[in-house]
Amino acid sequence: MEKDLEVLHHSTAHLLAAAVAELWPRTKFGIGPAIENGFYYDFEFQEKITEEDLPKIEKKMEEIKKRGLAFEQSKMKIAEALRFEKKKGQVYKEELIKQIKKLGTTSVEEGVLEEIGSKKMDTVSYYKLGNFIDLCQGPHVKTTKEIGCFKLLNLAGAYWRGSEKNPMLTRIYGTVFKTQKELEDYLNQIGEAKEWDHRKIGKELGLFVFSDIVGKGLPMFTAKGATIRRELERFIIDEEIKRGYQHVITPDLAKTQLYKISGHYPYYKDTMYPPMKIDEEELILRPMTCPHHFMLYKSQPRSYKELPIKYAELASQFRYEKSGELTGLMRVRMFCLADAHIFATPEQAETVIKEVLNLIDFTNKMLGLEKGVDYRYRLSLGDRTETKKYFKDDKAWENAEEVLRKVLTETKAPFFEAKNEAAFYGPKIDIQMKNAVGKEETAFTVQYDFALPKRFDLTCIDEKGKEKEVIVIHRSSIGAIERILAFLIEKYKGAFPTWLSPVQAQIIPIAERHHGYAIDLRNELLGKGLRAEVDLKNGTMQTKIRDAQLQKIPYMLVIGDREQVQKKVAIRSREKGNEGVVSISDLITRLKDEIENKK
Amino acid sequence: MEKDLEVLHHSTAHLLAAAVAELWPRTKFGIGPAIENGFYYDFEFQEKITEEDLPKIEKKMEEIKKRGLAFEQSKMKIAEALRFEKKKGQVYKEELIKQIKKLGTTSVEEGVLEEIGSKKMDTVSYYKLGNFIDLCQGPHVKTTKEIGCFKLLNLAGAYWRGSEKNPMLTRIYGTVFKTQKELEDYLNQIGEAKEWDHRKIGKELGLFVFSDIVGKGLPMFTAKGATIRRELERFIIDEEIKRGYQHVITPDLAKTQLYKISGHYPYYKDTMYPPMKIDEEELILRPMTCPHHFMLYKSQPRSYKELPIKYAELASQFRYEKSGELTGLMRVRMFCLADAHIFATPEQAETVIKEVLNLIDFTNKMLGLEKGVDYRYRLSLGDRTETKKYFKDDKAWENAEEVLRKVLTETKAPFFEAKNEAAFYGPKIDIQMKNAVGKEETAFTVQYDFALPKRFDLTCIDEKGKEKEVIVIHRSSIGAIERILAFLIEKYKGAFPTWLSPVQAQIIPIAERHHGYAIDLRNELLGKGLRAEVDLKNGTMQTKIRDAQLQKIPYMLVIGDREQVQKKVAIRSREKGNEGVVSISDLITRLKDEIENKK
Repeated sequence: MEKDLEVLHHSTAHLLAAAVAELWPRTKFGIGPAIENGFYYDFEFQEKITEEDLPKIEKKMEEIKKRGLAFEQSKMKIAEALRFEKKKGQVYKEELIKQIKKLGTTSVEEGVLEEIGSKKMDTVSYYKLGNFIDLCQGPHVKTTKEIGCFKLLNLAGAYWRGSEKNPMLTRIYGTVFKTQKELEDYLNQIGEAKEWDHRKIGKELGLFVFSDIVGKGLPMFTAKGATIRRELERFIIDEEIKRGYQHVITPDLAKTQLYKISGHYPYYKDTMYPPMKIDEEELILRPMTCPHHFMLYKSQPRSYKELPIKYAELASQFRYEKSGELTGLMRVRMFCLADAHIFATPEQAETVIKEVLNLIDFTNKMLGLEKGVDYRYRLSLGDRTETKKYFKDDKAWENAEEVLRKVLTETKAPFFEAKNEAAFYGPKIDIQMKNAVGKEETAFTVQYDFALPKRFDLTCIDEKGKEKEVIVIHRSSIGAIERILAFLIEKYKGAFPTWLSPVQAQIIPIAERHHGYAIDLRNELLGKGLRAEVDLKNGTMQTKIRDAQLQKIPYMLVIGDREQVQKKVAIRSREKGNEGVVSISDLITRLKDEIENKK
Repeated sequence: MEKDLEVLHHSTAHLLAAAVAELWPRTKFGIGPAIENGFYYDFEFQEKITEEDLPKIEKKMEEIKKRGLAFEQSKMKIAEALRFEKKKGQVYKEELIKQIKKLGTTSVEEGVLEEIGSKKMDTVSYYKLGNFIDLCQGPHVKTTKEIGCFKLLNLAGAYWRGSEKNPMLTRIYGTVFKTQKELEDYLNQIGEAKEWDHRKIGKELGLFVFSDIVGKGLPMFTAKGATIRRELERFIIDEEIKRGYQHVITPDLAKTQLYKISGHYPYYKDTMYPPMKIDEEELILRPMTCPHHFMLYKSQPRSYKELPIKYAELASQFRYEKSGELTGLMRVRMFCLADAHIFATPEQAETVIKEVLNLIDFTNKMLGLEKGVDYRYRLSLGDRTETKKYFKDDKAWENAEEVLRKVLTETKAPFFEAKNEAAFYGPKIDIQMKNAVGKEETAFTVQYDFALPKRFDLTCIDEKGKEKEVIVIHRSSIGAIERILAFLIEKYKGAFPTWLSPVQAQIIPIAERHHGYAIDLRNELLGKGLRAEVDLKNGTMQTKIRDAQLQKIPYMLVIGDREQVQKKVAIRSREKGNEGVVSISDLITRLKDEIENKK
């Protein structure tokens, strides 16, 4: 192992420990060495931690990394260090210092490379990273900014110092590389990426299926998958309506002529389905919603007083992607886009786009996706020299690009610029989202359009009673439902927050004599709009709990004699395990609260 | 006017009065003569009655008619009759009797044809219809069963006995014919039918628009229309899930091959869109959902213990109807069917179908549609001699038909039988719904299918571990959303119950100084999930109220100085007019309650 790579590994182990210290301050720390291909750190948690917590820890690590903290070394007398660790209750560190005092090293087994000091030393070395200080000989990178792209891999039990006579600690493994590309290659190589692939998880959890006889790239959502979709769809519709959008419903198809007027046809015809001719009409499945919304706008005269008019729709769209490009739910041949078109005056553009970014940040946050971590923005500009690729109007391009740049800058959005990536009708902001292995993809866009309104003659009557051209902002809020679902499956590894979970509570009767009460309870929960199921299979409680855990169900409600008599349930949560016996009404209140608050 | 027609007219006027007496017992009755083409009756209501109440009165008339009551004549001494009416507070009847005593007639103007008795009589004639007894010379039809098909036309103010010195009564006009056909012809002739046409109301209320450039038979729903759709869709999805349906989402299209396997292709290909060929695949827009649900069922092995499995979907479907057959939302080229397929053993069929009819009755009731009045059932049978039209299996047909008949009989459903109207794969129950002019159409169906499961090899593993064929019940619960919406628009003449109203409350600030409070109130109501708008146009309160009435908005919230200072609103309801000033929280409670209870 190269020395600088080893330093990187070990520094990232410290970053991991610093994150754990912030998240769970009562944790006791063991050792955190660099190993081949990465690092680990051993912890004694006072709370129950599972693999589901890894994304949370990664997020915190990312946050600390961004602070650009220096790794600062200091020395401490051994006697002082012992008092220091004792005071903090860090029993493992205390033991290590005692060993250093005696042997001059902490090593007790092969593969543990962390060595601290030499025999008969009277001081030990510490490294400080922000508020986190750790017994360590170093060396480290200079600041957290030098830490590259990392990934926590898994979590395992490990006896303290390798002996089964000692307590079992929790070992978290991770890896780190200088670039995202190297990280991805490594993850692909070890097959880890597949563990988080939404196609794999989707199959394990039974969220959707494909059928050769139905067609490629055409997923069928089971009740479980459809439940997540429905929650997402209702959430976005209700939120958009609150924000003044008019949610409309327009058909999946239109005359081919409509896309010739719009100018989409030459640009998109290779990915559009072929036209269908019957009688006097030629119809085609829509590859986008804009022309339909334009026709709704044009269905009556509009006054400037009505603007901005914001049409939104959960719109089915159809694109004939090449079969080699189809990827689970990420790239399909029919999808449902949370689409909208905002008709406004050029003067309103800035405010309108700010509101759109605010909505995007809000909805992403509710979905658990963090700005700057899970996604960032790309300002995709035109190219004045590419006269065939883009609608020709230099002044309009300059203006629109400046408006988008200004909004991104003023709202302090994390963004970068990219030349020659615009839509043919104007510049756009792309929402770049990271998948499970950190690969960035365009999830959806916000586009400034000054070209199509001219083609469709979209106008309003201004203050002076004259016709005035409007501009259109094309935007999504969470993108295609299929694609955001793929991102979320990978983000949560299938362990969705309660409000999105297909089954929110699995009722587990211990014996057959508890079936009646279990079914009554299920019906009561269903009646309250909660999604509950009963496991009536033969099998031990342990088997049933394991099945529910594999299905990543947030709550298991165990029912035995005591619970049946008292009309209560024993709650076991996916993250925290056993949480004791509660009344049905308390259970309902808790679940309702989590759902209401999108936890 | 023919004598028997006059008798029919006059008898229906009595039926109207009997209905009013049951609905509003405190009503004072004037006169109710036969006129050219129909009848009227004058009432002094103690409650506010509007045109919106006419369907309710018609429903009550229909109910009384069905009781098959006799019109029974009796005589009463004048003095006794005077005491009788006085006791009941029937001042107008009292006045009529006094006139009879003096002149021997009640007639005071031309066109009023009701004459009671002759001069110097000492008795008057009464007719009794159930509990309702009315001063009347007759003659009448024998029983209410002889009353044909009627329609209340409108409502107008009319001074008692035509003199403006007298109180203003409410006159309700109606018409009646021996057959539905004659009634419809008459309504069409007088242009009344058009008044209730959903296409006309849809346009007036701005619920949907058509565009030649989008295509024929492809409605675009505005935010208002889409709101009603969304309410209907969420209602049906939530209700079906409560009843154990698994709501799934499958794609709008599939390989043509799928419909060849299903056997639908030869039967439906004339109304299917043409196939789309790209690369190696040939895809087609789906005309029905069953094959998709079958593929979901077949995506894993099924045990008999899981049955019945009930897949439901709000499924987009596509049928290329001839342009001459397109009718507003009633018949379109793309529609969204509240569809479901229930996979069951033949032994479960009866229970399953009973549950389906129970769901249909429940949902219709929630929509305000009454069994036996707004809809009834048709048992559509096969024909064993039509071997090409129907799947050949005489025994299976006999059995399935008997199951459907048994369920209809046992649930006391109003139904009739029709030969040679089945689906090619089995018999069905059609839900026959009446439109505005009483014309009956098949709204949707419940089908018993023993044929397609054979084609698709749909099986379950039975108790003995062997493969066993299942049957499929195809069913809808409210039909195509477009079509049920058309029925509801006509049923309510656009005056939807609060939960379905696109705008539930129109806020009317009296002057510009009330705009701020009006907007705050709107935002507060929106925040509570209520659909409120503010009328900020210039214009008098009267104009704004009229506009809101024309838009059939259930609540108008008028805001003036007093309301603004007290932070209250003056409620004006669509049906009852002014209802006084209430606090915002009382208003919200009232609206929420109405919505919750689907009023």
